Amino acid sequence: MSLLPPAVDRLAEELGRLPGIGPKTAQRLAFHAVRMPADRSRRLEAAVAAVRDEVGTCPECFFIAAPGELCAICRAPGRDPRVLCVVTDPSDVLAIERAGEYRGRYHVLGGTLSPIDGVGPEALHLHELVQRIPAQAVREVILATDSDVEGEATASYVIELLAPLSLELTRLAHGLPVGGELAYADERTVARAFSGRLPV
Amino acid sequence: MSLLPPAVDRLAEELGRLPGIGPKTAQRLAFHAVRMPADRSRRLEAAVAAVRDEVGTCPECFFIAAPGELCAICRAPGRDPRVLCVVTDPSDVLAIERAGEYRGRYHVLGGTLSPIDGVGPEALHLHELVQRIPAQAVREVILATDSDVEGEATASYVIELLAPLSLELTRLAHGLPVGGELAYADERTVARAFSGRLPV
Repeated sequence: MSLLPPAVDRLAEELGRLPGIGPKTAQRLAFHAVRMPADRSRRLEAAVAAVRDEVGTCPECFFIAAPGELCAICRAPGRDPRVLCVVTDPSDVLAIERAGEYRGRYHVLGGTLSPIDGVGPEALHLHELVQRIPAQAVREVILATDSDVEGEATASYVIELLAPLSLELTRLAHGLPVGGELAYADERTVARAFSGRLPV
Repeated sequence: MSLLPPAVDRLAEELGRLPGIGPKTAQRLAFHAVRMPADRSRRLEAAVAAVRDEVGTCPECFFIAAPGELCAICRAPGRDPRVLCVVTDPSDVLAIERAGEYRGRYHVLGGTLSPIDGVGPEALHLHELVQRIPAQAVREVILATDSDVEGEATASYVIELLAPLSLELTRLAHGLPVGGELAYADERTVARAFSGRLPV
């Protein structure tokens, strides 16, 4: 028998379903919610509802957008529709936008291939990617998936998929992080920095 | 200008106000919420509302309870009302209950004294503690505040406050954790284990 009113256990259970929130953190947050001022609790509740009701994905690139509308990047004038950067998740778009270097558009796959977790090609927005390329006369696709096992597998799959099309296919450079120290870099990063070395 | 619909930024902001949730985690969770199935989002929303509307604190001991009702421990028959364990937070009650050793009742102070954060004695349920002692003919008070600076300061304050009353005043034992190795224990814990050594 729980010592707590059922509502507290229920909130802890729902919070514990969120990624990266373990059972202890979920309980700590539920306890915090008990003592939260009512107006803050109402704002949190309304924010959860608003994300469900007022947020969707861009029909063009699958980045986050108002429901049924193009996202802020697909709407923006002056972004080259003929260059697409293929990323895994919406958060990758934000990371690239923070760098302020890229002026093309995106294509968010919505995940990585992961046979172990039952994520096959049909679960990702790959079909839509292939359709966009002739429709928008895309001339370059830049692969920006993570460099872990799933990210590499996804990149390989996209490369094979797009190989028959006539376009430039590139990947983001891997190498030493800017401002980082060589002595602290891991072996694979150092190896990539060597194999990708450039003439000065 | 944010690239995201305002609802996403608003949810990230509300989540970022929760203890232990930094801005990066808050954004990650808000992005997750965008892709959450509608029924899970509704359950989370309802759980937040239920904790606000269906949960309060016990009028006797200030542990979590249904609004206006005694908590599960104060209601339980067979728990000695003449022994009180004084703790800081509701989570401390759960930790002690998990051990299954204690058969008295609790008094949840609702925080620790912390002059730096502007938490003085009037912010804690100290007045109610002093009133409970004669009202319930309490014969022993066990202090179970944390052994950090604020916890120790709070314990000292409670000891002074209760000193004039005729009751047994004890503190939880400090020492080596059961199952832990002496070699890994910190200096202060080893020192406490020595000063608190018991005849065999």
